[in-house]
Amino acid sequence: MAKWLSPLDAMFLYMETPDSMMHVGGLIEIEVTKGTAGEMSRQIRDELQEMSSAQPPWNRKLATPRFLKNPAHRWVEDTEFDAMYHLRRAALPTPGGERELGVLVSRLHSRPLDFRRPPWECYIIEGHESGNLIIYTKVHHSLVDGYTAVKMLMRSFSNTPDGPDEPFFFQIPPEPRRNKPVSDSSDESAPADQGSFVSAVAGHWMSARDIGKGLGRLARSRFRKHDPIITVLQAPRSILNGRIGRNRRFATQQYDFARLRAIADAANCTLNDVVLAVCGGGLRSYLQSIDALPAKSLVAFVPVNIRPKDDDGGGNMVGGMLASLGTDADNAEDRLRAVVSSTSAAKRQMENMTRAAIIAYTTYVGSPLMIQTGLAKMGLGRVIPPSFNVVISNVPGPTQPLYFRGNRLTSVYPVSFLMHGGPLNITCESYGETLNFGFVGCRDTLPRLQRLALACGESLDELEKAYVTP
Amino acid sequence: MAKWLSPLDAMFLYMETPDSMMHVGGLIEIEVTKGTAGEMSRQIRDELQEMSSAQPPWNRKLATPRFLKNPAHRWVEDTEFDAMYHLRRAALPTPGGERELGVLVSRLHSRPLDFRRPPWECYIIEGHESGNLIIYTKVHHSLVDGYTAVKMLMRSFSNTPDGPDEPFFFQIPPEPRRNKPVSDSSDESAPADQGSFVSAVAGHWMSARDIGKGLGRLARSRFRKHDPIITVLQAPRSILNGRIGRNRRFATQQYDFARLRAIADAANCTLNDVVLAVCGGGLRSYLQSIDALPAKSLVAFVPVNIRPKDDDGGGNMVGGMLASLGTDADNAEDRLRAVVSSTSAAKRQMENMTRAAIIAYTTYVGSPLMIQTGLAKMGLGRVIPPSFNVVISNVPGPTQPLYFRGNRLTSVYPVSFLMHGGPLNITCESYGETLNFGFVGCRDTLPRLQRLALACGESLDELEKAYVTP
Repeated sequence: MAKWLSPLDAMFLYMETPDSMMHVGGLIEIEVTKGTAGEMSRQIRDELQEMSSAQPPWNRKLATPRFLKNPAHRWVEDTEFDAMYHLRRAALPTPGGERELGVLVSRLHSRPLDFRRPPWECYIIEGHESGNLIIYTKVHHSLVDGYTAVKMLMRSFSNTPDGPDEPFFFQIPPEPRRNKPVSDSSDESAPADQGSFVSAVAGHWMSARDIGKGLGRLARSRFRKHDPIITVLQAPRSILNGRIGRNRRFATQQYDFARLRAIADAANCTLNDVVLAVCGGGLRSYLQSIDALPAKSLVAFVPVNIRPKDDDGGGNMVGGMLASLGTDADNAEDRLRAVVSSTSAAKRQMENMTRAAIIAYTTYVGSPLMIQTGLAKMGLGRVIPPSFNVVISNVPGPTQPLYFRGNRLTSVYPVSFLMHGGPLNITCESYGETLNFGFVGCRDTLPRLQRLALACGESLDELEKAYVTP
Repeated sequence: MAKWLSPLDAMFLYMETPDSMMHVGGLIEIEVTKGTAGEMSRQIRDELQEMSSAQPPWNRKLATPRFLKNPAHRWVEDTEFDAMYHLRRAALPTPGGERELGVLVSRLHSRPLDFRRPPWECYIIEGHESGNLIIYTKVHHSLVDGYTAVKMLMRSFSNTPDGPDEPFFFQIPPEPRRNKPVSDSSDESAPADQGSFVSAVAGHWMSARDIGKGLGRLARSRFRKHDPIITVLQAPRSILNGRIGRNRRFATQQYDFARLRAIADAANCTLNDVVLAVCGGGLRSYLQSIDALPAKSLVAFVPVNIRPKDDDGGGNMVGGMLASLGTDADNAEDRLRAVVSSTSAAKRQMENMTRAAIIAYTTYVGSPLMIQTGLAKMGLGRVIPPSFNVVISNVPGPTQPLYFRGNRLTSVYPVSFLMHGGPLNITCESYGETLNFGFVGCRDTLPRLQRLALACGESLDELEKAYVTP
């Protein structure tokens, strides 16, 4: 029954520390129209409390949980599966607004998982002022990557309001395997989220043999003059590059796709460029408010799925590009122009890069995070200049509206992880006609993260004013 | 500003592991008659959220938090005191009964404190079906011992329903020192709780020079025949002596003193004997229900304040005695007789013991816990025969009814800590005319701890039937 972990999955265990916990989360909101949130919560408990087993991967625990650095980790079945440990009820204090929800999710996300059990927890939260039922699920990245976890969670929901009651996600047998098991981070369908990026960087650190060669090609491909491409030397030092503590803050924003699309159309750029400009404007105003805005523009690392020039087809590869966020520009149009200019250049560069060069580049760019983590594990502070200031990921979510026992899901927010050297993560996920932003920050570094979320909303308004409703 | 920790306080940091966390807690219930629990909770938040300092010891953090084994720990002032980190709002999911409260407190008590901040947290909990406001406070034993923490907390409350609003406990300046600082575990007023016992054992391990001498005297004083005294070889092996995991269960019971006193009077024994018999009956029935009752009676370690024969007065000393819980007897009278017989013998023995013998005896009895903790830190399992099966402490609490802004405190429950080798702790605390039991268990070892609490209530009924209402 034992199942070996891939080296990349085991790497997430190696990187786990009390401060940098490698679990990912998702926050789902359900508009309750049949009964109340409290009734639904109690009904779920009553249905599940006598359960003493779960389907893979939700029944898997580590064979050697006390030895997280084990290079040959195995999953074994938890024969004493305790459903009420993993499935937890919770409630928001009054008035049950976004503030109380953000505080609760921050606390839940700040706590490490128990590796002597299957490393996941699911919270059913009532007490929201809207009457919505909230579900927050966290799972260790070594068990299931964030994208796969969302896909699996979504199988508990129905495509129609009148659909039959679906079983809860951890009762659903795994889908028949294609080439790879679902928990494998190198799953071909893996999108370009932060976890895939970290896997890629760590994986290539592990197989560093080709990196020298790759860097040579990279060097030859990169030195074109007057190119707006962002280099690894360009990111300013900022509060966004320090060591992290164990506590998190969390905030959300949901925007209609139509608003972002209208701006992208008017500005003749990609939707992702608009996302970056929205974040750039929000970060500028937020950092100004806490007196921490660097003079030079912040640089984001944007994980992307790439199929390099010399790849003979099939499969995605995770790489990434550095993008300016235009935070040195004081108006929305200049910021978007700075973003577009840097992402266009990065894409042009990538098109000309070989697979080896992309591997080398991604590893090179990601190295400071790995080195910071290594230093932190040795008890040392920060000494590494940043190659970027923040990771901004955009992962695909469910495209159709979903329902839980006749009640509509209104939003699906990602809750990503932080690493030493990166006290802020912004991940957004699509759901139907919306884009859902999850902001995760280190509590010690970033005060009042909710203000960053609100500032991003204002940044979107500003872009709209500049491009759509002039 | 730095303040050195006493070796005994530092010892609680050394013993801290992800499974055995050395914080103690208290659970206070307030009957809200003015406004609602939610309103009180929000009002407390509004009053405290702009606070950026606290009074000693609540503003103290470790100078070297990443090095818990530091033999020379110092407290330094937290100059970035973050009141909203320490003071937290929470709520119970519906229906907000004892079950939901037990689950929430269990989870909160299972989480280690952050040593990079002053190691304490206070939760203001609403949503109880009674309308009561619940306050759960946890504090690391190295900062303040449980008894002192309760005393300090109680200073936030008034002796009259019409008293002025008292400041919150962490805003109250420390009382003028007598001989020792309040956070010193060797505080002369320290009662005989589990923490004092652990301090005593560890302290004497540290100064082991006299132990050999003491054990010699102990041996001479102990071998009297036909004595019902419980020896360290008498405790049966049981599930109450295993290694612990990181998760806790918590349950409470409150009894009127009058009921216990009536039994003690009728049976001509001490109130503490009745407490032990109540626990014995509860444990017998609980362990039977999970098919884990040893044939031989369980043995409790009962920390007591002692003033040994050769002590030249003043000051308490923490020692302890082993007591039979009579769990091999199937009726209440036999159980109470077994308890009384063993505690009387233990007291007679202590009266004849010298200070050195008591030190040696306490250390000898407590050694398995220390050895188990040492082994667990080295990653090894249990190999040590138990000298007792459970610690049962009885600590003095407030004697007068207390009020919070006109609302009466109805109960004050202790929430103690667990160590490897001891998956169950029962501590009770007096408050006014009641005795308040807090049961803390290891979740992996003890299923349905609430049933133990209820079984103790039935055990009390049984004693009452046997002695008071025949």
